Amino acid sequence: MPASQARPSPVAALAADYTRLRATTMALAEPLSAEDAQVQSMPDASPTKWHLAHITWFFETFVLERYEAGFAPFDPGFRVLYNSYYQGVGERYPRAQRGLVTRPTLDDVKRYRRHVDARMQACIAAHAGDADFDALVTLGLQHEQQHQELLLTDIKHAFGCNPGRAAYAQRWPVARVGPAPVKWFGFDAALVEHGHDPALDGAFCFDNETPRHKVFVAAFELASRPASNAEYQAFIAAGGYERPELWLSQGWDWVCQGRRTAPLYWAADAPGEWRHHTLQGLVAIDPHTPVCHLSYFEADAFARWSGARLPTEQEWERAARALKAPADALRRANFADRGAYHPLPAAAAADEAPVQLYGDVWEWTQSSYQAYPGFKPWPGAVGEYNGKFMVNQYVLRGGSCATPAGHVRASYRNFFPTDAQWQFSGVRLARNPEPPDAP
Amino acid sequence: MPASQARPSPVAALAADYTRLRATTMALAEPLSAEDAQVQSMPDASPTKWHLAHITWFFETFVLERYEAGFAPFDPGFRVLYNSYYQGVGERYPRAQRGLVTRPTLDDVKRYRRHVDARMQACIAAHAGDADFDALVTLGLQHEQQHQELLLTDIKHAFGCNPGRAAYAQRWPVARVGPAPVKWFGFDAALVEHGHDPALDGAFCFDNETPRHKVFVAAFELASRPASNAEYQAFIAAGGYERPELWLSQGWDWVCQGRRTAPLYWAADAPGEWRHHTLQGLVAIDPHTPVCHLSYFEADAFARWSGARLPTEQEWERAARALKAPADALRRANFADRGAYHPLPAAAAADEAPVQLYGDVWEWTQSSYQAYPGFKPWPGAVGEYNGKFMVNQYVLRGGSCATPAGHVRASYRNFFPTDAQWQFSGVRLARNPEPPDAP
Amino acid sequence: MPASQARPSPVAALAADYTRLRATTMALAEPLSAEDAQVQSMPDASPTKWHLAHITWFFETFVLERYEAGFAPFDPGFRVLYNSYYQGVGERYPRAQRGLVTRPTLDDVKRYRRHVDARMQACIAAHAGDADFDALVTLGLQHEQQHQELLLTDIKHAFGCNPGRAAYAQRWPVARVGPAPVKWFGFDAALVEHGHDPALDGAFCFDNETPRHKVFVAAFELASRPASNAEYQAFIAAGGYERPELWLSQGWDWVCQGRRTAPLYWAADAPGEWRHHTLQGLVAIDPHTPVCHLSYFEADAFARWSGARLPTEQEWERAARALKAPADALRRANFADRGAYHPLPAAAAADEAPVQLYGDVWEWTQSSYQAYPGFKPWPGAVGEYNGKFMVNQYVLRGGSCATPAGHVRASYRNFFPTDAQWQFSGVRLARNPEPPDAP
Amino acid sequence: MPASQARPSPVAALAADYTRLRATTMALAEPLSAEDAQVQSMPDASPTKWHLAHITWFFETFVLERYEAGFAPFDPGFRVLYNSYYQGVGERYPRAQRGLVTRPTLDDVKRYRRHVDARMQACIAAHAGDADFDALVTLGLQHEQQHQELLLTDIKHAFGCNPGRAAYAQRWPVARVGPAPVKWFGFDAALVEHGHDPALDGAFCFDNETPRHKVFVAAFELASRPASNAEYQAFIAAGGYERPELWLSQGWDWVCQGRRTAPLYWAADAPGEWRHHTLQGLVAIDPHTPVCHLSYFEADAFARWSGARLPTEQEWERAARALKAPADALRRANFADRGAYHPLPAAAAADEAPVQLYGDVWEWTQSSYQAYPGFKPWPGAVGEYNGKFMVNQYVLRGGSCATPAGHVRASYRNFFPTDAQWQFSGVRLARNPEPPDAP
Repeated sequence: MPASQARPSPVAALAADYTRLRATTMALAEPLSAEDAQVQSMPDASPTKWHLAHITWFFETFVLERYEAGFAPFDPGFRVLYNSYYQGVGERYPRAQRGLVTRPTLDDVKRYRRHVDARMQACIAAHAGDADFDALVTLGLQHEQQHQELLLTDIKHAFGCNPGRAAYAQRWPVARVGPAPVKWFGFDAALVEHGHDPALDGAFCFDNETPRHKVFVAAFELASRPASNAEYQAFIAAGGYERPELWLSQGWDWVCQGRRTAPLYWAADAPGEWRHHTLQGLVAIDPHTPVCHLSYFEADAFARWSGARLPTEQEWERAARALKAPADALRRANFADRGAYHPLPAAAAADEAPVQLYGDVWEWTQSSYQAYPGFKPWPGAVGEYNGKFMVNQYVLRGGSCATPAGHVRASYRNFFPTDAQWQFSGVRLARNPEPPDAP
Repeated sequence: MPASQARPSPVAALAADYTRLRATTMALAEPLSAEDAQVQSMPDASPTKWHLAHITWFFETFVLERYEAGFAPFDPGFRVLYNSYYQGVGERYPRAQRGLVTRPTLDDVKRYRRHVDARMQACIAAHAGDADFDALVTLGLQHEQQHQELLLTDIKHAFGCNPGRAAYAQRWPVARVGPAPVKWFGFDAALVEHGHDPALDGAFCFDNETPRHKVFVAAFELASRPASNAEYQAFIAAGGYERPELWLSQGWDWVCQGRRTAPLYWAADAPGEWRHHTLQGLVAIDPHTPVCHLSYFEADAFARWSGARLPTEQEWERAARALKAPADALRRANFADRGAYHPLPAAAAADEAPVQLYGDVWEWTQSSYQAYPGFKPWPGAVGEYNGKFMVNQYVLRGGSCATPAGHVRASYRNFFPTDAQWQFSGVRLARNPEPPDAP
Repeated sequence: MPASQARPSPVAALAADYTRLRATTMALAEPLSAEDAQVQSMPDASPTKWHLAHITWFFETFVLERYEAGFAPFDPGFRVLYNSYYQGVGERYPRAQRGLVTRPTLDDVKRYRRHVDARMQACIAAHAGDADFDALVTLGLQHEQQHQELLLTDIKHAFGCNPGRAAYAQRWPVARVGPAPVKWFGFDAALVEHGHDPALDGAFCFDNETPRHKVFVAAFELASRPASNAEYQAFIAAGGYERPELWLSQGWDWVCQGRRTAPLYWAADAPGEWRHHTLQGLVAIDPHTPVCHLSYFEADAFARWSGARLPTEQEWERAARALKAPADALRRANFADRGAYHPLPAAAAADEAPVQLYGDVWEWTQSSYQAYPGFKPWPGAVGEYNGKFMVNQYVLRGGSCATPAGHVRASYRNFFPTDAQWQFSGVRLARNPEPPDAP
Repeated sequence: MPASQARPSPVAALAADYTRLRATTMALAEPLSAEDAQVQSMPDASPTKWHLAHITWFFETFVLERYEAGFAPFDPGFRVLYNSYYQGVGERYPRAQRGLVTRPTLDDVKRYRRHVDARMQACIAAHAGDADFDALVTLGLQHEQQHQELLLTDIKHAFGCNPGRAAYAQRWPVARVGPAPVKWFGFDAALVEHGHDPALDGAFCFDNETPRHKVFVAAFELASRPASNAEYQAFIAAGGYERPELWLSQGWDWVCQGRRTAPLYWAADAPGEWRHHTLQGLVAIDPHTPVCHLSYFEADAFARWSGARLPTEQEWERAARALKAPADALRRANFADRGAYHPLPAAAAADEAPVQLYGDVWEWTQSSYQAYPGFKPWPGAVGEYNGKFMVNQYVLRGGSCATPAGHVRASYRNFFPTDAQWQFSGVRLARNPEPPDAP
């Protein structure tokens, strides 16, 4: 049988990807009522309905408008309404008011999706194989995956504002495993290549992962797994939120102004008896599960208390590159396709290498989000994708339980401001080779 | 036929009132989708869904809990969720977050209403005729009418935040009548009785309309009708929003901080070419219609520019008492039952007395909202109905096109802060008997 | 000796008044360093230096500019810098930044005062006796007295922000008198004349005290003296700041947002052991002294807790008119000329009439600050003196220990927003003739 | 003459340094009145009086308390009042209210300085030569120099709020030199040592300059001099403040919210006719002078518009290390000892290397302020000096016209948030070796 038969045609492959990923989005929205899909619980979050429409707008604006003969928009008003931040595409509706747009309705938006999907399939049939076209469609699908994750984190936040703390999903099965103590893996100083490598990471990447460049990484040690709820509870019990010397100066202000005493979504029924709001509703906190919904400030303070520090993104990537079977690590990770929608305790022991680098929780690094040497944004309006955010944000690595499988890689850079908590963000400790001070 | 047959029994009358008024509420919500009913466009406004539930909560809490044997709440969580401001009834959900509560859904709330309605009908059958019971149910129905009006003003505001400015209703028929020039009606100084009189106003009133008391009202003159859009446009054209000497000091701050140049909902496509958002969508401004959505500050500045002033509430009530056929005035008024949901030009000439005292627009008075001499709030939790708001608000009189027919009377006092605009609030001028300065 | 010899000429009288009042201002500023005179501790307060300059600006702008031949301003920049709110006189420097203007220095401002004083004396010599001129100078002097009071209240607030709570004056002598229990004086219902009467109040008044007009005042009872610190401490001890049912709705929000537990300047070293910041530094609270630095909200809540209410300004004025020896009451009052700069316990028993109506503390009334029927602001720029503030403020009566002697009268209306506390504001209770509910 | 005679004793050297630097501070405060020294024009700035006291507090708290026998504080209240941010030293007075503390007066603070100076001289006589002691005193003197610079930048801001824009100093002499066009100097990729080297930089450094470590710096090109006012005016004229595509997303928000159209202190009398507030008052803008008072956002946008970018701090330091006569560069720089207190046009041509790396303006780098690999804060309370600020700030290099001579070095790292403008902060462009896109 000739190879050409075994491998789907470019058209069929792209069409299949498109169909599958677009269907995944709708499946994620399935448990939500029209009202659930309407609300915006804070300016950083968006309504489900907006996500559903915005990612469709992306295909309509950046693909159809360019490749479709006789292009006409589904609705000219949608250009303003569902533009997120692209200044190059004209006016935008104020971000903080997305939750007020009751019309178009959810049904209207679903109609919009079906309409654009049909046109996209025709367009794919006509243009797949053209490198520029394929790149744009692929970008649109990667973009859709990013919004799949945001759909989950944003509805979690919205449900967290409901008095009854509504549940999005069924309870996940947590294996009652004992706690694996943290081990430390050492890495020697080295001059390494850093950033996206198609041979290792696959063809696609975002512009912010490039160009691949040399970086000198000093010797360091990395924890075998993310910090657990039990470890974070020990930090709280040790007065973690009451000791300014553990915090960055801005972090301490953030603690005081918000009168914070625990991560987002945690509530204590009695002193020390923590429960937390999850996508499965309000549940008791499992000690063995990676702690999540930490701000950068919390991750940093916890690390300082632990006599350790946050890793740099170069250290993190170096550790990920050192895995012997990176594909296995990705395949076994707790991504959104598992349907847990919550971090889980490590399934495997960290005998030879760190575990849970991928999935479960995004891991804060101490690296500010900046351009790599020689970085160039993509040309055109899609060039607003990443570069314009390169200030006052910090890099997270590895993906979370809300990240679509297949979306992240060793070079993938996520980024959020230091006070953001509503992502599934956790912490893996690093330290210098010398023994750290005792906590 | 004996009289007893012609007049319905107390039970039948109360049950019929209950049924009719509760059905009116649902009819008002009928044009709205689940999403429309979800949103809260500003802290002062509430979602339709919240209104529907809150007025049901009122009956459940203040009537059923007291009169129903073996009372159990439909859902204990609703006690917190749908309490508006009654401190005596325990915890409250934060007002500004009402738009985030997606669960219960609109369908849940409708179920709640049907459930309480059935229990209320049983309760009415058992207790109607008991004076306290009747008073509470009547209060609940008056309360429901107040929220019918708010439902309309709040959804108008929400739709005003939609880019397409969604329409709630069909376009109203505006008779193309010519403008009737303002006439002035004079009133002599007099020591009068002020406040609710059952013989004149019907049995029911709110506590804030009592006790009836003596007040000395100096001579004054009152305009024959509310100011029109044309007259207000002349104020704008004369630089009304640019001349601090026309405004109260706080009012001028309000103009500057909000960069205001016109009433709420007005938008100019070109200089002077005003359109405004109505419950029928975005339409051209009719010059003969009473101007509405004015803040106190705007009403006051317009009056000053006109060489006049706002009436006091005592003057307004005195004029209303002087009408020869007050029942006719009420019956002919443009209240919500007309279905116009917008002020209309005066249908009749003001030959012998002011017209449009009732309906169309609430009329700002210069009277701050204060207790009448000897005022006592109702006992118990319903005593929080009115008295606790008696500071930094100003009285409006007469009802509007969004007020249910039968709800207002000569002694009825509405009240809002001086910057509130989202009610159908307009202005009728008053002046001292001496000729005013020319504008 | 003929009477004409005993009475000073109009020129001499006005010149003497001018000299005396201007010197009083400088004497009040005497204890303050250049730094003390520089600071502005909140937007509502002004630096001493600004007060000294602004009241001089008033004479320069409203008197010299009109009456002085060949007028030229001392410094054109001062027109902007020392204009308070007169829109008619052009641009203003932002109020909240008055504390940043280090140049002109205090010495510059003293020079400015001397300069204007010399020109004013020449102007008085030339024009005194001209009714318009005399009226303007008199207004300027009354205005200066108002700022003398503000100078004291503002520096008290500034010193209250100093960690050591600096003292302005020597400790006052408090007679250790026992508490006089409150008595109630009854007043019958009556149709009375209200407002300024030159025969009773002297020739001068502000426009807001006119026109004198008829008002019907229902029967009421008034407390013999202002509430004392001991009585207010009982309110606190009874959970006054923790019981929402005692507060106006806005008042309760004010309590919660400011986390308030006591009047301004009070601090508890231990539970119940209150001290307060005074113009004499931080001292223990004397139980018999009138409580002061209450907001309207606190005065109202205390009254409600006491089973009473605030008086209206008509009631207050009626009681003041009923005094048999009003001149004595004014003469004996604790005004600023006493140098106590703090309220004092009543010196005399209230045998036949209320005491302390004048001086000690401004008494909050429940009357919103509004125009009297037929009110007309003064013509020209001085017409901005009062009328433009007639909204969302409440009337206080009687003057305080910081008010210059000779400044207030029975018809005098002071006014502040409901959250203002930094004036010497207290509370005298009123009630309806029926026995009030027990506290 | 033996070498030992030529070199002063450790005691004499330290005592002389102490005397000289402390006197410099007082000389800088000399032109200021007590009122000038009182004001705080924004929370980021501090009053001169506070600076004078705080740096004295530093010696009293960190040196005298440890080394002085029978130590007693000058005034216990000063421990709270003049603590800046050291959590380890107890309570702090709120930063934003420093301008309200009128007592202690400026004279009190001068007395405090003299008092501590006398005790310090005794302490130096007793302990100089002890390594720990010398290190602490040296740190205190470096700290004093940092506040000398802040004294200048803060009083500049305060004077900028004065309507007359008061002048601190006499006009500087600007040589009317023609503009030197920017040249680009290329640097090859290299693995270099980065951070403080005592052999190159002198013995003292702050903890944040350590440890010296390896870093790989890719090839880059650096501009011969900072950008000039003329170049920045061209950016403005090209619509720099109106084109979102030139700005970071946060930067564009900052432009819009602040309605910014030019750097801090610039004012246009007519379109394009700029003047700016300087320490010498309001003067016309010299086109050849380095532009200053740029925020990071402005520096970044200007760089993008120029087809270039900001350098990293590693690139900057590499260029500084490459100077052939670094000592000369430091000696010729326009630091505060010159008394210009304003950047000046380059005195020398940049024939062989970049000029003005030191002095004139701090140069923004694109490097976020982070710990160097292996960084350890100093032990004890002084360890709060630097590390706790290592987030959301960006590094500036080279010192400015307000920096004391002798204070900076090649490894010196200054840092400010991205919106800070009140420092003398400018921009030197960098670019990748490939030719940049045309502007």
